[in-house]
Amino acid sequence: MASSDPCHRHFLSLRDLELDELQRLIERALALSRGARPEASLGSVANLFLEPSTRTRVSFELAALALKAHVINIEAARSSTSKGESLRDTCATLAAMGVETLVLRHPEAGAARRLAKELEMPVQLINAGDGDGEHPSQALLDAATLQAAGIDWPRATVAIIGDLRHSRVARSGLECFRRLGVGQLRLAGPETLMPDWDPGPGVERVDSLEAAVHQADAIMMLRVQHERIDKTVWPEPETYARDWCLRPEHLSAARPDCRVLHPGPINRGMEIHSEVADGARSLILEQVRMGVFARTAIFEWLKVRAGR
Amino acid sequence: MASSDPCHRHFLSLRDLELDELQRLIERALALSRGARPEASLGSVANLFLEPSTRTRVSFELAALALKAHVINIEAARSSTSKGESLRDTCATLAAMGVETLVLRHPEAGAARRLAKELEMPVQLINAGDGDGEHPSQALLDAATLQAAGIDWPRATVAIIGDLRHSRVARSGLECFRRLGVGQLRLAGPETLMPDWDPGPGVERVDSLEAAVHQADAIMMLRVQHERIDKTVWPEPETYARDWCLRPEHLSAARPDCRVLHPGPINRGMEIHSEVADGARSLILEQVRMGVFARTAIFEWLKVRAGR
Amino acid sequence: MASSDPCHRHFLSLRDLELDELQRLIERALALSRGARPEASLGSVANLFLEPSTRTRVSFELAALALKAHVINIEAARSSTSKGESLRDTCATLAAMGVETLVLRHPEAGAARRLAKELEMPVQLINAGDGDGEHPSQALLDAATLQAAGIDWPRATVAIIGDLRHSRVARSGLECFRRLGVGQLRLAGPETLMPDWDPGPGVERVDSLEAAVHQADAIMMLRVQHERIDKTVWPEPETYARDWCLRPEHLSAARPDCRVLHPGPINRGMEIHSEVADGARSLILEQVRMGVFARTAIFEWLKVRAGR
Repeated sequence: MASSDPCHRHFLSLRDLELDELQRLIERALALSRGARPEASLGSVANLFLEPSTRTRVSFELAALALKAHVINIEAARSSTSKGESLRDTCATLAAMGVETLVLRHPEAGAARRLAKELEMPVQLINAGDGDGEHPSQALLDAATLQAAGIDWPRATVAIIGDLRHSRVARSGLECFRRLGVGQLRLAGPETLMPDWDPGPGVERVDSLEAAVHQADAIMMLRVQHERIDKTVWPEPETYARDWCLRPEHLSAARPDCRVLHPGPINRGMEIHSEVADGARSLILEQVRMGVFARTAIFEWLKVRAGR
Repeated sequence: MASSDPCHRHFLSLRDLELDELQRLIERALALSRGARPEASLGSVANLFLEPSTRTRVSFELAALALKAHVINIEAARSSTSKGESLRDTCATLAAMGVETLVLRHPEAGAARRLAKELEMPVQLINAGDGDGEHPSQALLDAATLQAAGIDWPRATVAIIGDLRHSRVARSGLECFRRLGVGQLRLAGPETLMPDWDPGPGVERVDSLEAAVHQADAIMMLRVQHERIDKTVWPEPETYARDWCLRPEHLSAARPDCRVLHPGPINRGMEIHSEVADGARSLILEQVRMGVFARTAIFEWLKVRAGR
Repeated sequence: MASSDPCHRHFLSLRDLELDELQRLIERALALSRGARPEASLGSVANLFLEPSTRTRVSFELAALALKAHVINIEAARSSTSKGESLRDTCATLAAMGVETLVLRHPEAGAARRLAKELEMPVQLINAGDGDGEHPSQALLDAATLQAAGIDWPRATVAIIGDLRHSRVARSGLECFRRLGVGQLRLAGPETLMPDWDPGPGVERVDSLEAAVHQADAIMMLRVQHERIDKTVWPEPETYARDWCLRPEHLSAARPDCRVLHPGPINRGMEIHSEVADGARSLILEQVRMGVFARTAIFEWLKVRAGR
């Protein structure tokens, strides 16, 4: 992880961060959530969202505004990409216009890293979700939310449940929790949606929701992404809801202080029951709240990296 | 109208306001239009428009910017609602991100009030038009525009003309002018477009444009909403224009100082003749101008309500 | 060019400018690009883009933000124009709301000038591209970019190559370079895409890319506008690329310090080879960079004109 690697001036993946950097980012998000004042003042930030997203875009926008940035929003359908321009050229153009930070949501895994390698401009990239790839700011906010709720990483069992195969949230979460020294990681979901990628060592795979939540300290439910479902690997919605919807009775098998996460937007009654989503164990809105602080911490960190 | 009603920290309907509150809002809009400086400074405001609108969205945006807000724009097609998220969850999410004021345009009547009842977050809602329901900021700006033009409410006859059945502008206007003590309210439009809702006591229904404008002090023409027309109740466009288009000759039957209002966008030659729209009696652009001040007054009022 | 002409308080066409005004705008853009601080502080600016554009919209937005403006973005599909409102009424409405400067991109040639004539409001218009008409801010940035690169206008040969017939960039560029006293202007493109408008006196028409670039000091390649191609006048893409794509070997016939311009977005391999676009002679990203400063200079100039 030499800092001469051009990817290291960006925020592309938690894998690019040293453990202490990751921990300091989380601590900073926590401090901001407790009222610390945002430091630094940004120049221009562009949100380039080539896939629909309200919550992530707004979260980055509010974080950037808290740092006095000028925020430019660019969305798929109407961007130059519809005129056949390459992503690299679009981004080089924005950089030439003086955009200092580019928040990229892209439908293809690896898009942000490929771009970072091709782009010879001083702009800094943030990967705000790349297809089935990674979603590092989500993992950061998830970890910060769990820490704010008092998780003790070495003793904790975290279950991640749902469509693991196609989930960038799962992938980045796994990476993050492992690096923070989580005691046990447990994965569960329909057989056809279990990872076809390597989740790394020491991960327990179980084949039912009941087994997954047993004595868990934290349960991360994944979203059923209706808009992307591949019918060849997906069960019928009724079957999915019957087998994989987290309901109140499941929580009694978890640890008494078990917390429930979900990246949102939630499908009530599909992957999570309303009583759970709105219940005392749910940290879903806490995640949303922490998201703005986590992204503010990322912007501050990038600013220091850039030596601006 | 106990202030413990959770709806009373929002701006949902003029019916939630005491008369003196309504009057003070109008006075404040008038003061701002005459150069008073906007007070207060807002946090984050989200414009959540689930139905197309340029003028209302921009008017709220400029009002919020005048109060130094961070403004987030979210539009229908690309919002999380397209991922199946409920309106309540979308709004709870925005509130969790720190959005303090949520300006909602929604295609269904009652949407803003339902949301206010369901939402357990400290965010404040503004109803910026809900289907055939209400459009209270429009009524406020209409009343302020008429007051700036010197209307004497107890002596005034106000005619509202056009598609009364489906018009939130008519509904909120009626409510507002009545509460301000207007002398006479008169409604007119094609028979199939007359109100199927109760316009309240003392309202005169007439069956021609000529009868409606007779000795009127103010004429409010309603927009033909081409994009929503239900052919089973609508006359042919030519018939509508022949019978219900306000033309210069009609004005000679009104009071000499009669003023013409229209919420815009106008359909020239359909519900209003260009000579009237652009003529000396027209307050149409005054309404637009006053709109920004009325919305600034609403934001200021909400801020005081919130005790922020 | 009497200043009583109402068009002269707008920025519609370089033809409305005196030569010394044009030169001062260019000098100001150059000064800003070298670090001069933006002067003046704007009120509200609306970007009304009735045709898709990322780069031009963002460039104007960043320029306006540098001048502390409140920027309102309005795009085609969702604007009131979709409700049948005329452009004049939309713009009068924005002006009534307090918008001081209106940046207009429109699909029809002459739209901005027609609007300027019809509009009786104090708003100032900027023509940000009107169909096949003009694109004066592009010409300004092109000229400033060439001056920054040291062009000596009276001795310079500038070649403009591609779809001249439909190009507002070509039209405005020609006008601009001629007024600045360029030594020689040369036009080239497929026969069916040569100008059917009068390019003015002293312009050389040649019939091959090779002849066009011969001893040129600057080459301006035009974009193949895939989204607008009229098949009755356009060659097949392969034929176009074979005959009219600027490749490295062509540059050896140009002057040793010849510079290459392109308004972007570029179609790599269609009108320009990647080695040229990314090569040492290319000023493409310099144009983009200069674009923000040119537009800042335009806003400053308008502010002075308005005497605000």
